[in-house]
Amino acid sequence: MSIATTMIIRLEIRKSVATFGDVASRLAAVGGDIVAIDVIRAGKDVTTRDITVNVQDAANEEIITVLTDMPGIKVINISDRTFLAHIGGKIEITPKMPIKNREDLSLVYTPGVARVCMAIAEDPGRAYSLTMKRNTVAVVTDGTAVLGLGDIGPEAAMPVMEGKAMLFKQLADIDAFPLCLDTKDPEEIIRVVKAVTAGFGGINLEDISSPRCFEIERRLSAELDIPVFHDDQHGTAVVALAGLLNALKVVGKRVEDCRIVVVGIGAAGVSICRLLLAAGARSLYAVDRAGILHKGQTYDNAEWSWLAEATNPEGLTGGLTEAMQGADVFIGVSSGGILSVDHLKSMAEDNIVFAMANPIPEIEPELAESYARVVATGRSDYPNQINNVLCFPGIFRGALDCRAKVVNLEMKLAAAQAIASVVHPDELNEQYIIPSIFNEKVVEGVREAVIRAAIATGMARRLPPDISE
Amino acid sequence: MSIATTMIIRLEIRKSVATFGDVASRLAAVGGDIVAIDVIRAGKDVTTRDITVNVQDAANEEIITVLTDMPGIKVINISDRTFLAHIGGKIEITPKMPIKNREDLSLVYTPGVARVCMAIAEDPGRAYSLTMKRNTVAVVTDGTAVLGLGDIGPEAAMPVMEGKAMLFKQLADIDAFPLCLDTKDPEEIIRVVKAVTAGFGGINLEDISSPRCFEIERRLSAELDIPVFHDDQHGTAVVALAGLLNALKVVGKRVEDCRIVVVGIGAAGVSICRLLLAAGARSLYAVDRAGILHKGQTYDNAEWSWLAEATNPEGLTGGLTEAMQGADVFIGVSSGGILSVDHLKSMAEDNIVFAMANPIPEIEPELAESYARVVATGRSDYPNQINNVLCFPGIFRGALDCRAKVVNLEMKLAAAQAIASVVHPDELNEQYIIPSIFNEKVVEGVREAVIRAAIATGMARRLPPDISE
Repeated sequence: MSIATTMIIRLEIRKSVATFGDVASRLAAVGGDIVAIDVIRAGKDVTTRDITVNVQDAANEEIITVLTDMPGIKVINISDRTFLAHIGGKIEITPKMPIKNREDLSLVYTPGVARVCMAIAEDPGRAYSLTMKRNTVAVVTDGTAVLGLGDIGPEAAMPVMEGKAMLFKQLADIDAFPLCLDTKDPEEIIRVVKAVTAGFGGINLEDISSPRCFEIERRLSAELDIPVFHDDQHGTAVVALAGLLNALKVVGKRVEDCRIVVVGIGAAGVSICRLLLAAGARSLYAVDRAGILHKGQTYDNAEWSWLAEATNPEGLTGGLTEAMQGADVFIGVSSGGILSVDHLKSMAEDNIVFAMANPIPEIEPELAESYARVVATGRSDYPNQINNVLCFPGIFRGALDCRAKVVNLEMKLAAAQAIASVVHPDELNEQYIIPSIFNEKVVEGVREAVIRAAIATGMARRLPPDISE
Repeated sequence: MSIATTMIIRLEIRKSVATFGDVASRLAAVGGDIVAIDVIRAGKDVTTRDITVNVQDAANEEIITVLTDMPGIKVINISDRTFLAHIGGKIEITPKMPIKNREDLSLVYTPGVARVCMAIAEDPGRAYSLTMKRNTVAVVTDGTAVLGLGDIGPEAAMPVMEGKAMLFKQLADIDAFPLCLDTKDPEEIIRVVKAVTAGFGGINLEDISSPRCFEIERRLSAELDIPVFHDDQHGTAVVALAGLLNALKVVGKRVEDCRIVVVGIGAAGVSICRLLLAAGARSLYAVDRAGILHKGQTYDNAEWSWLAEATNPEGLTGGLTEAMQGADVFIGVSSGGILSVDHLKSMAEDNIVFAMANPIPEIEPELAESYARVVATGRSDYPNQINNVLCFPGIFRGALDCRAKVVNLEMKLAAAQAIASVVHPDELNEQYIIPSIFNEKVVEGVREAVIRAAIATGMARRLPPDISE
């Protein structure tokens, strides 16, 4: 089946050479159906028009070629549906009430606002009630590790951060604003974030490359009194743990008893290991290009050194193949195709495989299904998608509502358990271990669990009205 | 007439000592009318309630005293209408379209967004069409000169910046976001602003104290390729010039022929002088605590040194009294009450007095009216309010629409002329030299004038479709 899509093509037509009629017939000949025309500029010699065309997906390239080859026609720009959705950006900043007249103006701006400013100057804590701070999160990136695209810079990172801000608002009613920083120096990033925090109740770090992300998050958490959360690390870890908790229920094993292999010890891998340890994992093996991390080896990366001590109790050496022998659980946040059927065959019975590399999993799910009891990926086109959209809205909703100082390990653990518990035990099966990102119970459940964990660990500065002590 | 207002009072009632009935009768006795009750927390011994009370303005204090004196009652918080308008902040960040399902998600977030990111990575200029950059302005302050309140810090500055963002959106459909910086170091401010500009199409500097504001704006303008505009300087200057142009029409004088005295050579005063010179003023006198700025004197402040050379052609010395002799125009951005009736009497005939100090003008308008032909102030409760809300929305709308690199002197001059021209010659009189901030023609007129001036001075990088070359 060929899917119809809409394109908008901006053309310059040199009148002495070509007519709009010529364009229309050429387009029709290759299956393009013109549904709208907007004259952008009507010059003496040249007119500029936006032509909206319905087209079968397969004909996309052909249409462009046909137009590009026409004399007197210059194709300025072609936008398909995805690009059209991005025109002018995806979020806007809107007043909560209109300023209709001078009385309104004097309430929200001068002269009335002066009293509100003075109230905050006398007691800065009132910024939480009298400004947007209590509901606002900065989505901060330096554009160095955007999606799977690598270091594409702050401008090119904006569409992802705007998308994230949309999700924050829609899923958790949080006002999130993208700050894409034009610096890669960790010290400078820390300075800039610290300088802008007055108006923010939380900081969501995003798509900052490893290992710089660890130091940046650690320092900001220590030096700011608002929660700082690097989503690529902890969002992924929380949702992976949520999925694993349910997968273990399906196969009837306990995390304490499992041999767990985590492969790809970058931003997400480190956090997954830490969270698994906090959840009770004892036989945990962290594998990267250096092989299985083990005691007695020195690593440049401080996180790896820490993990070498905290995991791999019997000091196993070797690589992926050695680690996988008898493993109950494989969790991959590495790269596509590294896992073979033989690896899976060497695992324990009732094995669990989370192949979360994006866009290509560590092993094709179709292949893995025959050799693993539960399979999860990071992709939406297979069952059991480990998607951190399940985590960050609820984590921040909870942290903001109780004015948490940090997002600590206990809060992350509670979030994972809350996500897992949204899938009712009766519904749970090999193909359904994780709720949909559109399941409305997720944010509410994560929020409450995070608030309770924050209170229990002394990190909450406010008791939300709906939560009893 | 006593005006009814609404207050919300948060109370803790210790049940063993007082009842809600006690509270209600005490409030009624002093004229408080309870219209709503919300139980915030119902504890075993203590309940917390929000009580909404309609009250005559005069009884405000009495109500608070009555409650504070009651045994078993603890007043936690009292919010009046102005404070209520600020609860939770005044702006929000909203998606332009909802994400209803996985198809929507794949358009605006992963995986679709990756193609948009790559398009920008390949051509950073496309950030203007594919992100919010083209319509977004940062409202940047360090909180050092907020309203007339002085250095109140970044948290306390937020309500003003949020109010400004409301005005940006409502008047010019611009998305403005407050960045209140926790640093007063000009170098650090410059670094931070430069680091965050990827997502912004313009920078509105706000309430940064003089003389630091000059260097910060100069450096940022030079080092960034987007317009940087310090509203306290130039917004005030543009609107003052607009008012002056119309006042001169009323009295039948030309700016070139007038003797003009500007008093208070801070952020706004410097910009007013520069703009007056650009508008053709020849007999201009800048007066501050050091007296009339004049050649041959050395000043610490670089702006003062420049003005000493550029103004005061005959090298007049002395203070305000000397400057005012025979002056046609007084423009004050100094402090309340510095101007006397004798000063006004010493001016030329058909004199113009702009007493813009806030909240107390340089001379009371009631007093000035008898000794000046045209009087303007910064206040909304007198005719002829010089309010920079008339300027910044249109200036930025124009600058963004033509992707101006800067806001130069020509663009400011054009903006002033555009504001002035909104008042039709037939309407013009001593009491009406400046349009209302709610006059919808203002933004449109300023926008077009700014775009034309940007094009004429080679500062525009885009020709908006509605503007012909």
